[in-house]
Amino acid sequence: MSSPLRVVSFGLGPIGLAAARLALQKTSIQLVGAIDIDAGKIGRDLGELLELGKKTGVIVEGDAEKALKRLQPDVMLHCTSSFMPMVKDQLLLAARCGVDVVSSTEELLVPEFQHAALAKELDAAAKAGGVSLLGTGVNPGYAMDFIAVVASAVTFDVQAVKCTRVVDAGTRRLPLQKKVGAGLTRSEFQQQMATGRFGHIGMRESVALLAKALAFKLDKIEQTVEPVIAAEDHKTAFLTVKEGQVAGIRNHGYGYIGKRPVLHLDLSMYVGAPDPRDEVVLESTPPIHLKFHGGIAGDQATAAILVNNLHGIVAAQPGLRTVLDVAPPRLCR
Amino acid sequence: MSSPLRVVSFGLGPIGLAAARLALQKTSIQLVGAIDIDAGKIGRDLGELLELGKKTGVIVEGDAEKALKRLQPDVMLHCTSSFMPMVKDQLLLAARCGVDVVSSTEELLVPEFQHAALAKELDAAAKAGGVSLLGTGVNPGYAMDFIAVVASAVTFDVQAVKCTRVVDAGTRRLPLQKKVGAGLTRSEFQQQMATGRFGHIGMRESVALLAKALAFKLDKIEQTVEPVIAAEDHKTAFLTVKEGQVAGIRNHGYGYIGKRPVLHLDLSMYVGAPDPRDEVVLESTPPIHLKFHGGIAGDQATAAILVNNLHGIVAAQPGLRTVLDVAPPRLCR
Repeated sequence: MSSPLRVVSFGLGPIGLAAARLALQKTSIQLVGAIDIDAGKIGRDLGELLELGKKTGVIVEGDAEKALKRLQPDVMLHCTSSFMPMVKDQLLLAARCGVDVVSSTEELLVPEFQHAALAKELDAAAKAGGVSLLGTGVNPGYAMDFIAVVASAVTFDVQAVKCTRVVDAGTRRLPLQKKVGAGLTRSEFQQQMATGRFGHIGMRESVALLAKALAFKLDKIEQTVEPVIAAEDHKTAFLTVKEGQVAGIRNHGYGYIGKRPVLHLDLSMYVGAPDPRDEVVLESTPPIHLKFHGGIAGDQATAAILVNNLHGIVAAQPGLRTVLDVAPPRLCR
Repeated sequence: MSSPLRVVSFGLGPIGLAAARLALQKTSIQLVGAIDIDAGKIGRDLGELLELGKKTGVIVEGDAEKALKRLQPDVMLHCTSSFMPMVKDQLLLAARCGVDVVSSTEELLVPEFQHAALAKELDAAAKAGGVSLLGTGVNPGYAMDFIAVVASAVTFDVQAVKCTRVVDAGTRRLPLQKKVGAGLTRSEFQQQMATGRFGHIGMRESVALLAKALAFKLDKIEQTVEPVIAAEDHKTAFLTVKEGQVAGIRNHGYGYIGKRPVLHLDLSMYVGAPDPRDEVVLESTPPIHLKFHGGIAGDQATAAILVNNLHGIVAAQPGLRTVLDVAPPRLCR
């Protein structure tokens, strides 16, 4: 075993904290720093934020540039925002400081899809700095896209892809339950949807990743989001959804060739959703029907895949990379 | 789309032919040559060997060095033998000629496992020649190892891995039915087993790949192979297995830490095997239970994964690579 990777956590929201907690448990990783903009977190020991009952010696800092320059880590574990324009300066900073990045930013999954110019700028900066940048996660990044890509490896051709993900939001953390609107009325749900920061983020990126990976020349990518209304009362550890209230969302993503939806992603995330699972069906030769029974546990899995990509991104060639061109993710110890 | 990859097929047994047939169908690949040592194949058009009903213009050659030097292909699609010592000179030749290689050689999956010195020699030659060499396939290389590795990416830790593959050999090609001993008596089966070229090749490589990928420090790798005896008559397209005859094999692979088999691969390949499937269970946090319903169709899938890795190996960094350090395999068109 070579010496541990030196990692800095940037962004200490729920996912960032879960990833940092996991990183602290890895012998092949040394968490050497933590960064957040929240004044309520700056100056506190990470062990306190994680309620570990002991200090880690890692004190949260507010000045990312100062921290990166002083610590000179190998990699940044980056969980600050879903949107590329909001993380641009953070990634450019990492590139300038020679620090590789594994990021939970959903839009980075297919960087050129929504932000072609910015993707080029980041790629150039990464190459200039000799660093690799990667956006990944479970959804998008794995359950409804990457797994189907890997499944395609054993086929002659693929005519269509259907991915189904069913998550019982009642078993998940409170932010997820709120993100899917559990307990809202229909009209509250519609108001929240209008903000664009609600529901699942990254459905169109998943469709775009599949199209890119499997060389589907799509004419159009679309999505629909609807509330799922509770047919009976459901009580979670955090809240109660009453009959007639919103239990969560049903989110479809489609990639069309002409009028045919060759890519169809079907995501249900609601309190009480039955038969949680992740399922991939390839209309292919030979046909593929793949299923994660019980589903891939979202919060834990997201922290895991971020941490499990840290070694891979250090080995990758410089540039703005995607999950299609770095080594396959796998457990690190 | 950039110009097609220029590919030479080396080895035109059943798998090599299936892969060549598939390569001919790909617009991103141009099959420019074919090599085999069989005097019965040399000089014939590949279209004739494939019974395409038309000529391809690709004439099978017997002199590999001459062919590679004249054709200067990008990649060699290599399907000549399961064993590294037998392919050594072929791979060194490719390295000297500056040709990347995707190989079906089972022992190349974890090259250092059985042939450490040879692995070093091949790696050095590949780097000197600026080429990448990769051994892959479905089993070993995907169904009972790689998929479990990719599944581990969404876990915090893995304590144990169980992979189950059930193949109804009755639905497969004749060589596969013969390879698993369908229609033999028990004593014929035992005689065949003693040759070491019978049954499934690569079980220990699958265990070794899992151990390497997931950082299990094994004390021991073992396998067992037993005949499965037909409880009733089975008729396939090629042969009949009578009640009491061998229907095929049951092959277990184990990786032990102390006395605990932390890795357990359970392969059934016999005529009439019920519920064909590929299943991965990780004893992990969170737990993973993944299943290819109906299983991964062996012959087609093997041809597919070889061809689908051709673009990836060209993009990989020079050296003797493994499926753990090249880009994830995916369909090419």
